[in-house]
Amino acid sequence: MPDGVEVVDAPVSIAKAPDPAAAARSTRDASIVRAATAVADGQADAFVAGGSTGTALAAGLFNIKRARGIHRPALALPLPIPGMPVTLLDVGANVEVRAEHLVQFAYMGSALHQVVYEIPRPRVALLSNGEEPSRGTTEVVEAHARLLEASGLDFVGNIEGHALVEGAADVVVADGFSGNVALKVLEGTSQRTLVEVQQIARRSVRARVGNFLLKPSLYDFHAEIDPEQQGGAYLLGLRRLGVMPHGRFTREGVARAILLAAQATEGDVVGRTREALEAAGALRSAPVAAPAPPAADAAASVPGSS
Amino acid sequence: MPDGVEVVDAPVSIAKAPDPAAAARSTRDASIVRAATAVADGQADAFVAGGSTGTALAAGLFNIKRARGIHRPALALPLPIPGMPVTLLDVGANVEVRAEHLVQFAYMGSALHQVVYEIPRPRVALLSNGEEPSRGTTEVVEAHARLLEASGLDFVGNIEGHALVEGAADVVVADGFSGNVALKVLEGTSQRTLVEVQQIARRSVRARVGNFLLKPSLYDFHAEIDPEQQGGAYLLGLRRLGVMPHGRFTREGVARAILLAAQATEGDVVGRTREALEAAGALRSAPVAAPAPPAADAAASVPGSS
Repeated sequence: MPDGVEVVDAPVSIAKAPDPAAAARSTRDASIVRAATAVADGQADAFVAGGSTGTALAAGLFNIKRARGIHRPALALPLPIPGMPVTLLDVGANVEVRAEHLVQFAYMGSALHQVVYEIPRPRVALLSNGEEPSRGTTEVVEAHARLLEASGLDFVGNIEGHALVEGAADVVVADGFSGNVALKVLEGTSQRTLVEVQQIARRSVRARVGNFLLKPSLYDFHAEIDPEQQGGAYLLGLRRLGVMPHGRFTREGVARAILLAAQATEGDVVGRTREALEAAGALRSAPVAAPAPPAADAAASVPGSS
Repeated sequence: MPDGVEVVDAPVSIAKAPDPAAAARSTRDASIVRAATAVADGQADAFVAGGSTGTALAAGLFNIKRARGIHRPALALPLPIPGMPVTLLDVGANVEVRAEHLVQFAYMGSALHQVVYEIPRPRVALLSNGEEPSRGTTEVVEAHARLLEASGLDFVGNIEGHALVEGAADVVVADGFSGNVALKVLEGTSQRTLVEVQQIARRSVRARVGNFLLKPSLYDFHAEIDPEQQGGAYLLGLRRLGVMPHGRFTREGVARAILLAAQATEGDVVGRTREALEAAGALRSAPVAAPAPPAADAAASVPGSS
């Protein structure tokens, strides 16, 4: 056993539970629940969960709780784009969102990007179906207007899907439905394009020789765009951080997820997010649920910046 | 002037109008309005519009009118995936949709795919953030339930973004917001991946030689995934068909768009869509606006198939 590692017994599996949220609340001895309670009790600083997102989210919300003033946790993913880090959130925690949720995602993503990539003022964009402020769903249009007034954030406006991979922004904010679609299309298309290149390389002798010579470099590229190299998604918005490697990752990817969790904890992503949201007046004011007051209105009265 | 071509004067440009919908209603002499009225008057069978989608949609709705029983027109695009035709709709006409709109999009896309690719029974899927019927927005979940009961359609369930490029379905249905995001991410990522391959090919002498040999084949591939080769998007759901080449297309792409319009008109996409929707009982029953009755309920009482 390496130094500093403690194994906690978690003999019950809720991986196949029909209602993961309910199972996470009622089953103390599932590994995700043990991990979340260890964080809640201060025995651990962050948790890493490779199971279903829904279960980890439920266990985190129930045990670790939402950070003060946060509407909804979000899943943030560093995209597998070589040499050009882009953080996309939400990639699946919230299928339906309100404008104030998108505004908070912008701050959460910006704080994460600052810590992970050491970029002091990341450019933040909203994912939409057009660049104009009037384009997008009602929530996107409203979030755009609020972000234009927001302090402590470098909001660069709406971007379309193609700009996601063209370096137009460092942090891209979306609802969890279209964010998930964007992520999956991106992963699928980059893999598929490389497969197409391989198939095309069989069409002529010249191309076959060319492909043979190029192959080792393409192999490296394959590795670069492999989601496993990123280590997984960050769960932001709880009192402590979570990192979620994908279920199909090997031990390499899970190890990387643990390193990400340590790095983001040392960089105090949770504290930085709260400070930025507080300075911008974008924290949810009431500690209970129900519609929160418009974040942008509050932001306008607090001209400070993080 | 080639035989069969008649030029109609349209001296007024509304390309930069602040409110394209209003301009399309008040400006008789704009080319898109002239084209739409020619179709409405029976002088033409379809229109091809390279300007803004919003303007063409407004001109089409105002002059050609929605087809009987159709809730909303939708933009359908054959995706630039080599050797594997996939029709994605809606790619931007309707940012917000209801479940019955998604159901109609499924029939509209299926009819188009049958005509364009001569596939008798295309597999139709809903784009979502998970394959389970419970995943997705409220509208997607409801549309899934209705499509499971729908006749005259090969509904294969939900697919995630990566499956869009993996041949999981022939027709993929989405709201216009996430459909547009999916399309743009796909186009951007395939182009970007090829650029990455070129950059990687400069890293070593071996790779440079390989790339030199492979380049002619890759050039062909570039052309295959060029959206211009597809000729543009189909505007479905009006009494007559529209085709919209992208604004950045050259004359080649516009010529292709005209051919697409002729082919889809000869194949009677509009008539086939109406027949399929009618047989499935999925037509909007009231001719006026306001919430329509649930399409699936109506479908359940008409067990016939198209």
